[in-house]
Amino acid sequence: MTTKPLTVAIAGLGTVGAGTVKLLQEHAGLLAERSGRPIRLKSVSARDRKRDRGIDLSQVHWVDDPLALAVDPEVDVVVELIGGSDGVAKALVEKSLHDGKHVVTANKALLAHHGNALARLAETSGVSISYEAAVAGGIPIIKLMREGLAANRIKRVYGILNGTCNYILTEMRRTGREFADVLEDAQRLGYAETDPSFDVDGIDAAHKLSILASVAFGCEINFAGVHVEGIRHVSAVDIAFAQELGYRIKLLGIASLSDHGIEQRVHATMVSLDTAIAHVEGVFNAVVTIGDYVGQNVAEGRGAGAGPTASAVVADLIDLARKRALPTFAIPASKLARLPVAPMERHYGAYYVRLMVKDRPGVIADVAAALRDERVSMEAMLQRGRAPEEVVPVVITTHETEESSMRRALARIAKLDTVAEPPRMIRIESLTA
Amino acid sequence: MTTKPLTVAIAGLGTVGAGTVKLLQEHAGLLAERSGRPIRLKSVSARDRKRDRGIDLSQVHWVDDPLALAVDPEVDVVVELIGGSDGVAKALVEKSLHDGKHVVTANKALLAHHGNALARLAETSGVSISYEAAVAGGIPIIKLMREGLAANRIKRVYGILNGTCNYILTEMRRTGREFADVLEDAQRLGYAETDPSFDVDGIDAAHKLSILASVAFGCEINFAGVHVEGIRHVSAVDIAFAQELGYRIKLLGIASLSDHGIEQRVHATMVSLDTAIAHVEGVFNAVVTIGDYVGQNVAEGRGAGAGPTASAVVADLIDLARKRALPTFAIPASKLARLPVAPMERHYGAYYVRLMVKDRPGVIADVAAALRDERVSMEAMLQRGRAPEEVVPVVITTHETEESSMRRALARIAKLDTVAEPPRMIRIESLTA
Repeated sequence: MTTKPLTVAIAGLGTVGAGTVKLLQEHAGLLAERSGRPIRLKSVSARDRKRDRGIDLSQVHWVDDPLALAVDPEVDVVVELIGGSDGVAKALVEKSLHDGKHVVTANKALLAHHGNALARLAETSGVSISYEAAVAGGIPIIKLMREGLAANRIKRVYGILNGTCNYILTEMRRTGREFADVLEDAQRLGYAETDPSFDVDGIDAAHKLSILASVAFGCEINFAGVHVEGIRHVSAVDIAFAQELGYRIKLLGIASLSDHGIEQRVHATMVSLDTAIAHVEGVFNAVVTIGDYVGQNVAEGRGAGAGPTASAVVADLIDLARKRALPTFAIPASKLARLPVAPMERHYGAYYVRLMVKDRPGVIADVAAALRDERVSMEAMLQRGRAPEEVVPVVITTHETEESSMRRALARIAKLDTVAEPPRMIRIESLTA
Repeated sequence: MTTKPLTVAIAGLGTVGAGTVKLLQEHAGLLAERSGRPIRLKSVSARDRKRDRGIDLSQVHWVDDPLALAVDPEVDVVVELIGGSDGVAKALVEKSLHDGKHVVTANKALLAHHGNALARLAETSGVSISYEAAVAGGIPIIKLMREGLAANRIKRVYGILNGTCNYILTEMRRTGREFADVLEDAQRLGYAETDPSFDVDGIDAAHKLSILASVAFGCEINFAGVHVEGIRHVSAVDIAFAQELGYRIKLLGIASLSDHGIEQRVHATMVSLDTAIAHVEGVFNAVVTIGDYVGQNVAEGRGAGAGPTASAVVADLIDLARKRALPTFAIPASKLARLPVAPMERHYGAYYVRLMVKDRPGVIADVAAALRDERVSMEAMLQRGRAPEEVVPVVITTHETEESSMRRALARIAKLDTVAEPPRMIRIESLTA
C-alpha cells in the first residue's frame, strides 16, 4: 500500500469545517496509523479570511475562490462544506468530479436534489462521492446500510433525522409548553435557525430520508416523492394525550416498499413507549433499519454539531486513504431502480385524531357516525373533564385503515356544528422488533 | 475492478453455517450487485453429511476434512464456523492464513485466546481475518468502531454482549421469578445451553469484550485481563429493588482507559432507566461507544441466531469481494499497544449492596459504622417492611468510592452478628450521554 499522503482541500469553514480542520490536526498521528498513510490538509477556502475560527491555519494554503480547489493537481479529495442545493456548492462538486477528484460532502440538500446526476458523473470520472456527514452526522448510518447490512434486503428504514425537531418535541413534553414558545428558546440557544422552516417543516429530514431510501432500496433518489409534514401543528395537549396513551410524539422519516411502490414520508408520529426510538431524546438522532436476515437494527447518536459531523467527514477520508471507495448509492448509478411513488392516500396505518368540540350530548355519536360511514374503526376515545357548552378536547385513536378513508372521515367531522376547530391528525406507527 | 467471483469455502454447518449458505444462495444476485462480482460458494465441510439442514448443497463440493479447504488453490476465503478456542477451528484458521487465504470467522473464543498471534500471522501472509459475526452478530460493531468511528479516540466501550443473560434478566424482571427457575425455561426454549456456564458466568461476554477493547484502544487482546462475574447471584429481590431505585440490572461488558491502565470487566450492573441500554430487552444486544469527537453512539440489534450472524459473515465476504481488507484490530499487529491492566481494586464507582439482616435495633448503625470506617459514603438506605427478629433485606447504595474500600467495608459487614448471609454487591454505572 502507498504511503503517499492523501491530500485534501476543504471548502467552507463554518462550525463543521473548523471542526474538521481541528480533528485532522489533533489526531494526525492516529489517523495516519488507521489510514495506512497520512491525511494532509493542503488548502482551504472560505468567505472571510480574517474571522477567528479557533484553528491554526498557518500551515494551510488559503484559496479565495473555492472552485480553484477543484483543479489543483495535487489535491486528491475536495471536502465540500459550503452547503445549499445549488450555487457554489454544486459548481464545486461538479467541477471536482469532472477533474477526477473524490468529493466528501455533508450537503444533504445537494444530494437530495442532484444526487442521481452527481453519482453518474462520479462514475464516469472514476471517482466517488462520500457523504456520511450528510445524514445523522454522528451515526455512521451510510456505512451501516451500504456495508454493514449489505447482505440484507432492507425492507424499511426510519428514524429521527432532525435534532432541532427532536429537541423541541422533547422540551415540549418535559415542560408542557407550546411549540412557538419552545422554538423561541431553541433559537436563542442556537439549536434552531432564525428561519426555522427548513427544520420544523420537515424539509431537512426529507432530504436525509430520500438519501437513506436510495441506499436502502437501490433506487434513484426521489426527493420530490417524499410526503413532508412538519411539527408546527403539534400541541402541548397532543403531547399530554400521547403520554396517557403510552406514546411519544417524534418527527420521523419513514421509507418502505409497499405494493404501491416506494413510500417516503416525514411527519409527526406517535411511537409506543416500548420502542427504542421513543427514548431517543433532545438533539440525538436515531435510525432503525429492518433487514430480512438481520432483523431490526437501531443506531443512535448525535445528529449534528462540529464534533460528530467532523467525525463523519474524516471517517470518509480514512476510507479514501485506504482506497475503499464505493458506488455512491451502494450499486452503480446506472443500475439504480426508478421506483413508482406510493400515493400517500394509499398509506395504511393507525391514527390519532384530536377534536376541539362543544361539550354537548350527541357530539361523540356524530363523530362516531362519520368514522363509521368511511369504514374507519375506532380503537379508543378519550375525553377528560366535563365543561358543558364549552370547547373541550376529545381524542380518538383508530385501528389501521387507508389514509384516504381517514381523510374523508376527517372532512366530514370538520363540517359538524359542534366541532370548533379543524381536526388534528397524527399518524401512529406500530414499530415492533 | 475484477469480475472473477470471490470463491468461498465454509467449515461448520450448524445454525450459522446453514444460515450463511441459505443467504449466499437466496441473495446471489443482490450480493453480486453490491460486491461488484459474484460470491461463489465452492465447498463446505461438516461432521455429518447426512443431516438435513434445510439447505440445498447439490451445487457445492462436500469435503470431509475441513483442513483440506485451507489448501484448495481455488478458494479465496475460508469461513470458519466450527467454534472453540482450540482444536480443529484453530488448526483450520492457521492453515488457511499460512496458505494465503482470507479467513472469516464467528469464533470469539479463538480470537480472545489467540487473536494477537493470528493477527500477526495474517499480516505476514498478506491476508486478513474478518470477524464481524464474533461480536454481537446482528450489530456491525466491528465495522462501526474500526471504520465508522475511526476518526475518534475511543474512551470507553460497553454493552450487553450476551443475549442469554439479557433474556434471563429480562424474564426475571417481567415475572418476578428467580434465576434458576428462568434458566431452566431458557434451556427448554433453546436460549441457553445444557451447560450454561459459558453464558451465565460471563465468559462469552468477556471474550467479546476483549475483542472490542483491542479495536477501540489499538491494543493487544488481553482476555486474561478481563475481570469476569456472571449473573447467578442476582436475585429477584435485587431486581425489584433496582426497579424501585430507578435502575435495571444488565450483564454489561465494560472497557475503558484509566490512569491505572486498561479496565475490562464483565459483571451484573445497575443502569439508570434514563439510559438507552436499560431498555434493551430479551435476546437483543447493544453496544455503546464514547468517542472524543462523535460523543456517544448506541448500536442495538439481535446478538445471535442464524439470520443475524449470517448477515455479519456475508458482510465480511462482501468487503473481501471488494478487496477492502483491513488490519485485524484496526492497526498493524506490530503496532498494537500492550497496556497495563488496571487492578479491579482500583475501580472507582458507586455500589448497590443488599444485606439480609436480623430486624433488630442498632443493625443499621453497625453497618453505617463499617462503611464510615472505610470511608464509603452512603447515598441511600432502604428497608421495606418490619419483621422484628426475622431476617429482612436491607439495601444500601453508595456514592462513588474505590472498590478496595468497598470490599473492606463488606468484609467488616459480613462479620456482624446481625448479618445473616454474605452481602450481595452490584456495581452501579453512571452512563450519561
